[in-house]
Amino acid sequence: MEGAARVIARRGVRGLRVAELAAEAGVSTALVYYHFQDRAGVLRHTLEFISDRAERYTSNEDEGEGEGEGEDDGGGPHDARQELERSLLLEFQDVPEVRENSTAWGELRASAVFEPELRGDLAGATLTWIHDVAGLLGRTRPTAPAPALTASAERLTGLLEGLSTRWLSGALPLNHARELVREAISIELDALGRII
Amino acid sequence: MEGAARVIARRGVRGLRVAELAAEAGVSTALVYYHFQDRAGVLRHTLEFISDRAERYTSNEDEGEGEGEGEDDGGGPHDARQELERSLLLEFQDVPEVRENSTAWGELRASAVFEPELRGDLAGATLTWIHDVAGLLGRTRPTAPAPALTASAERLTGLLEGLSTRWLSGALPLNHARELVREAISIELDALGRII
Repeated sequence: MEGAARVIARRGVRGLRVAELAAEAGVSTALVYYHFQDRAGVLRHTLEFISDRAERYTSNEDEGEGEGEGEDDGGGPHDARQELERSLLLEFQDVPEVRENSTAWGELRASAVFEPELRGDLAGATLTWIHDVAGLLGRTRPTAPAPALTASAERLTGLLEGLSTRWLSGALPLNHARELVREAISIELDALGRII
Repeated sequence: MEGAARVIARRGVRGLRVAELAAEAGVSTALVYYHFQDRAGVLRHTLEFISDRAERYTSNEDEGEGEGEGEDDGGGPHDARQELERSLLLEFQDVPEVRENSTAWGELRASAVFEPELRGDLAGATLTWIHDVAGLLGRTRPTAPAPALTASAERLTGLLEGLSTRWLSGALPLNHARELVREAISIELDALGRII
């Protein structure tokens, strides 16, 4: 799966050939087919792998900017807001693992326009992501109604995907992307705070 | 160019072969090379073509929902807000031309991650789009400072790109995408209105 994520991030989903993947992983193509049936099976498992990996680096790592001194103990609204910012901003880091993950995710998303067999799993992974972000928003704005939290999470994650592809294609500097996301979180939280 | 947009929307940028494009347009491959030099030249001109076409359908057409009875005379803040909504929402229509345009734009954006020669023109087209949206925001919020208008336009267009790929890959129903964009416009305008 690591090899598949690397190959996709290097050349795109459309560049992924099972033979190349087998070479990257140092195994036979027969073994790849044995485990994953076909190319679509490889893509589905890669999606699962990069989703898990993203969850790991967005929930456990420290941002290293001196903003996050408190413990991650699932505490009050202030902690939740910090966690929300950290979680969404960690997608924008010039670190090989993050760049590779974001590239592979964007590729799977873009490919799903042309490869319907990817859509179900991708839609599922998206719903999980939206659900998690809505949960963090809800801890920051405990009185906001669930549909408003979900809509807000859909916009924030949608924005993240849009800005991520701009960043990866060289149209948006990393720090500016982070700034735009930070402001988006603020105005979404303001809007959620004004709902009676 | 119409043929190129069709081929890209059908199979992706990575599926675009000059020979197939020539067949689609009913001309020789030599003529394609004569006009556009190479595949990258075709992609650059296709980008220009779809940007112009998008500008046409986002600025001239009627939405047909009974919201836009006033004339498009560049009038006051109310007209500007209607124009802004119409312009951003027209990207979400289940009409072959719009679907094809959005698909081709998303493909060019996603491909630019792997094909650096596309990046310059794509970044230029993105800046023009941001500039136009910032202009409409400025007509609605005449006292908001320019950098805030630009940031707001960057977020709205980034969100549009993110939601567009979700829509085209079957992860987001069209009407819900439109609803999310409408709310995003509202909360961005609210935020711009609160800047002293």
